[in-house]
Amino acid sequence: MIETTVIGASGYSGVELVKLLAGHPSAHIKAITSGTFAGRPITDLYPNLLGTCSLAFSDLDVDEAAKSDVVFLALPHGQSMKIANTLKNAGAPKIIDLSGDFRLPADSYEHWYERPHTAPNLLDEAVYGLTELNRDEISEATLVANPGCFPTGIGLAAAPLIAAGAIDTTITANCLTGVSGAGRATAEATHFCRADENATAYKIGGIHQHTPEIENILSAITATEDATAHVSFTPVLAPISRGIYSILTASLLDNLDEETLATICADFYENSPFVHILAPGVSPQLKMVAGSNHCHVGVAVDKRLNKVSILSAIDNLVKGAAGQAVQNMNIMCGLDETAGLTAPGLFP
Amino acid sequence: MIETTVIGASGYSGVELVKLLAGHPSAHIKAITSGTFAGRPITDLYPNLLGTCSLAFSDLDVDEAAKSDVVFLALPHGQSMKIANTLKNAGAPKIIDLSGDFRLPADSYEHWYERPHTAPNLLDEAVYGLTELNRDEISEATLVANPGCFPTGIGLAAAPLIAAGAIDTTITANCLTGVSGAGRATAEATHFCRADENATAYKIGGIHQHTPEIENILSAITATEDATAHVSFTPVLAPISRGIYSILTASLLDNLDEETLATICADFYENSPFVHILAPGVSPQLKMVAGSNHCHVGVAVDKRLNKVSILSAIDNLVKGAAGQAVQNMNIMCGLDETAGLTAPGLFP
Amino acid sequence: MIETTVIGASGYSGVELVKLLAGHPSAHIKAITSGTFAGRPITDLYPNLLGTCSLAFSDLDVDEAAKSDVVFLALPHGQSMKIANTLKNAGAPKIIDLSGDFRLPADSYEHWYERPHTAPNLLDEAVYGLTELNRDEISEATLVANPGCFPTGIGLAAAPLIAAGAIDTTITANCLTGVSGAGRATAEATHFCRADENATAYKIGGIHQHTPEIENILSAITATEDATAHVSFTPVLAPISRGIYSILTASLLDNLDEETLATICADFYENSPFVHILAPGVSPQLKMVAGSNHCHVGVAVDKRLNKVSILSAIDNLVKGAAGQAVQNMNIMCGLDETAGLTAPGLFP
Amino acid sequence: MIETTVIGASGYSGVELVKLLAGHPSAHIKAITSGTFAGRPITDLYPNLLGTCSLAFSDLDVDEAAKSDVVFLALPHGQSMKIANTLKNAGAPKIIDLSGDFRLPADSYEHWYERPHTAPNLLDEAVYGLTELNRDEISEATLVANPGCFPTGIGLAAAPLIAAGAIDTTITANCLTGVSGAGRATAEATHFCRADENATAYKIGGIHQHTPEIENILSAITATEDATAHVSFTPVLAPISRGIYSILTASLLDNLDEETLATICADFYENSPFVHILAPGVSPQLKMVAGSNHCHVGVAVDKRLNKVSILSAIDNLVKGAAGQAVQNMNIMCGLDETAGLTAPGLFP
Repeated sequence: MIETTVIGASGYSGVELVKLLAGHPSAHIKAITSGTFAGRPITDLYPNLLGTCSLAFSDLDVDEAAKSDVVFLALPHGQSMKIANTLKNAGAPKIIDLSGDFRLPADSYEHWYERPHTAPNLLDEAVYGLTELNRDEISEATLVANPGCFPTGIGLAAAPLIAAGAIDTTITANCLTGVSGAGRATAEATHFCRADENATAYKIGGIHQHTPEIENILSAITATEDATAHVSFTPVLAPISRGIYSILTASLLDNLDEETLATICADFYENSPFVHILAPGVSPQLKMVAGSNHCHVGVAVDKRLNKVSILSAIDNLVKGAAGQAVQNMNIMCGLDETAGLTAPGLFP
Repeated sequence: MIETTVIGASGYSGVELVKLLAGHPSAHIKAITSGTFAGRPITDLYPNLLGTCSLAFSDLDVDEAAKSDVVFLALPHGQSMKIANTLKNAGAPKIIDLSGDFRLPADSYEHWYERPHTAPNLLDEAVYGLTELNRDEISEATLVANPGCFPTGIGLAAAPLIAAGAIDTTITANCLTGVSGAGRATAEATHFCRADENATAYKIGGIHQHTPEIENILSAITATEDATAHVSFTPVLAPISRGIYSILTASLLDNLDEETLATICADFYENSPFVHILAPGVSPQLKMVAGSNHCHVGVAVDKRLNKVSILSAIDNLVKGAAGQAVQNMNIMCGLDETAGLTAPGLFP
Repeated sequence: MIETTVIGASGYSGVELVKLLAGHPSAHIKAITSGTFAGRPITDLYPNLLGTCSLAFSDLDVDEAAKSDVVFLALPHGQSMKIANTLKNAGAPKIIDLSGDFRLPADSYEHWYERPHTAPNLLDEAVYGLTELNRDEISEATLVANPGCFPTGIGLAAAPLIAAGAIDTTITANCLTGVSGAGRATAEATHFCRADENATAYKIGGIHQHTPEIENILSAITATEDATAHVSFTPVLAPISRGIYSILTASLLDNLDEETLATICADFYENSPFVHILAPGVSPQLKMVAGSNHCHVGVAVDKRLNKVSILSAIDNLVKGAAGQAVQNMNIMCGLDETAGLTAPGLFP
Repeated sequence: MIETTVIGASGYSGVELVKLLAGHPSAHIKAITSGTFAGRPITDLYPNLLGTCSLAFSDLDVDEAAKSDVVFLALPHGQSMKIANTLKNAGAPKIIDLSGDFRLPADSYEHWYERPHTAPNLLDEAVYGLTELNRDEISEATLVANPGCFPTGIGLAAAPLIAAGAIDTTITANCLTGVSGAGRATAEATHFCRADENATAYKIGGIHQHTPEIENILSAITATEDATAHVSFTPVLAPISRGIYSILTASLLDNLDEETLATICADFYENSPFVHILAPGVSPQLKMVAGSNHCHVGVAVDKRLNKVSILSAIDNLVKGAAGQAVQNMNIMCGLDETAGLTAPGLFP
């Protein structure tokens, strides 16, 4: 069994990790930490885990954590980089960080996250963990920067056609996000009466910190060397608990029809068990991936304007966070990529 | 009092008209017709009208209807054009049609709605009823083609900057729509378990029949004569009963900042009591217009890419259908534009 | 015009008052106060009021408030009683308090609200404002204790059959409540991800502070003098923004059929324009009253067990709070009871 | 591996069976049948199963089905009894029926379901499958009548205190039900715009066909021999996809406090891994069991009235249908009761 520790287990990504690891056939949870809730059973906060996990939160013991085969950091941005070196120094062999702290070069991070980067020494070591695009590096990694939810949804949707040189590298991406993306903390925007029956764009004008992460994913795989991807990105909070629904629009460079484009995408993900390319013209449905690690992708061509719409659906807490982290753990530990991640979406 | 008849009053747009007209200080409802439900009180289907409207549906009597000052057609596409000439011949002085039958030139209609146009003689007479852009013509009209919900939301958002020549005339517009847009009939897509916690794009690839209507609105007001607007349009069904939330992305032609753009928009709607331009960078919220005839618009500039995001929120059944129809009636009858339309959005 | 001041206008009940008073044909809002948000336009917090109310919150000026014809107190429990005497002393002619502070005798208040009553001198003057049961006293009142949302929903449902002596005075009442009943403040229980797709009973075991208020309403009208009503009451938080849905079960004392029971109810509310008794066996629907001051009531008899189910639906913020307060103002000021309260429920 | 066939696999209970069996460590799905959708992959209707189940629906082949170790009937009421004898005659060793056809004695069935019973010969053989109350008989059964969703939720909540003689056997039970309980077929009541933000009681007046099933469960375990349980039952449709939330009220026969009552319940379910008794005074939350086979139960005492509230939460499609069916299969086949049923509730 792979021994794991989840640091920051009381937040939504943290508890999702606990849930997945508790049901994982080859993993064992050694400890779950929470500064705020140390001493309390996780089922006090998350009664859905009654019968699944009987652990209590504990204070972080770095030396104990470092003895785990894999340490997950499910901390807010800024806190992971404070603790990662300590864990490394204590001998932690494999760390998977779910925050944004190790996803960007230091200068880009400091610009977009508006804070200094305090562990730049680890950035070279950190491997970006968008699993489907980066399996080989992930399999060798000691520190994985688990991707953001929007970069996962947009990246998986756009990657095949960008890589094939089929579309312009400047794209528009509007995403709906479920409210769980805002985390467990209470706030005016997440009050039921505010979010229910509502839709609200936020961080409009291209200022969301996931923007450079998305562009980096796509720039790295453009068909033309040195080409740079640009993404005009607008997130919208929707009255949904879970999910990222991405609506991409891009100009076609050739007159490829949607059957061809769907085939390019399907070939790209031929060996990726979690990505499903729908028939041309068929839209993904967000609910179909809720609670699962799957990603559904649909493509359609607007022949009149020679543009393509690419739609994708993921669960922000699973493929967009904890599920992809476990998928990365599986690869880092030589397990089957799907181990512990076979739950289908919860529908109806 | 203005005597009115609502033809096709059992559908969602129809009953919304009944609701608004029942509360209108200067209008009286003479009859509400429904082939299916003739003889039944409207409160059987819509108990929310208990205490508001005690009428029963009746079969259509064209001669009686034609005696009304204003006849509203709230029929499915294809049925309005069958009846409009009959009403005209019977002497109906003013008709407001909520279907798509009189919004497009005949050839465009036949292409996008995939059926022959059977009343082309009325197309010259028909005035397109996007109130804020067309008040003068509406005030003289005898037949108003009330706009579609998406064209209203997108048109109001894009018009000021298109008219000012501030943005490129090729734009991307993704819209969330509430489920009521699909109407009262039952269907797999509108089953609660299917729509709830879900998001589904539909008619993807630029095939939605509102596309030419949107392009016509914008082409008519471009700053450069003979310029043509192009819209890449993707609608998404969201788990919301009411509303159209539009997310527009366009390239800026000059380096105008968002304050200037917001001012252009505010000036454009200076005399439009229902359109509210929010402070630069502030997003509209869909729920804030639910049940009202208001439209909220927000703008933000992505300086990095020199693009603008324009967001708008309307209620699809009110400003996107019945409310705008009443607004047009007010103008056609010389009343204050806001008469009977003063309800604010239902929040919380 | 009736001059009004709303004290505590930033909460959900307060803003609902502002909304209703802004649209009232015979009322004018002089001031809206909020300690927290003084100086800010109400549309900052509630953009749904753009075009409806351009007032800003102000700090409370007791002398100015006391010059109003009617002062509404929309403050948390415990704060109204602190300010009521001050307003009285400053000459306020009519006060309508939406909190629980003047609804119960002092000893009962102190027991259920677990705090001392600091203005017991006003309790004799206070008139309980369940409009349909108390119009005459309300018309003469200088201080109205506006009822709680649950007592309104349960009271209106049970009153006719209790008064007729048709049912046992010990009843079971389970109520669903919309999340807006918890108010504007953020809390774990009102986080969208927690409330959405959920149902949670709370204050179980008969400990909700509305219990004695409900029993007092019913005890006051029992057919047998000195009889006392007992209510076993369980509230359940439901994923709905607005509404109280009450499910009452009581033993029938005679073998009356549901037609007779419905007739008793309809006769009871013959002169009450907001209460609608549905046909026997027909259930009210909560959404049909959303945003309205209406109350729908349905009855059905379980012949096997000789019990009756009584169901009622109200909007907690309207008939359950601000709407009933305006209804009471209308009666106190000699206006038609329905003035400013004619909006039907928002459906679809 | 246990070979299974799911007959009627296109409905909501059927597909939930497919989902659970596809992930079951010791079961294999041989065939899934659907008259309407024969030939189509299940993922056409349920894309959430992409990557989980690649079967297509087939027409029913009774002889092939009878070769399965276990046949599940997920058919509408009235259809199971038509097919059960045919399967038996073809040699099917174990049948689990999810309809109401084998849950009641013939006369009671005919009264409540308003149709003749066409396979009364099987009623003696049929074992009622409320697992926690009937494990021994289930382990020997060849035909299991899987319980209804309401009887499961109410039965599990009431059983311990009824069995202990702690409460009166006449109880009031109001239940919220998720919309999936109405099945996959479209109907006015399940239209999103109708169900969303709504609550509607239905089959009021004690006429729901689950009533005798509930009373039979409880009558069978009363502490006093020959005592009969009576349930005043009102179901309410709530804007939730999944779940049954039961609110029971009963008179206490002794002055037991809630700690004692909770202990009685916990002892009763000591060996039942899916039933969790919460701390006294703590309410279950419906969402915490969504997608799981768990049942959460909470108790609280109203000392003033000497009554007890018992609350329970289950997922209507899992513990209330397909999950319990798999749990019964496990017991019938000598497997661990929890095999294939370890998924926790989906929260957030």
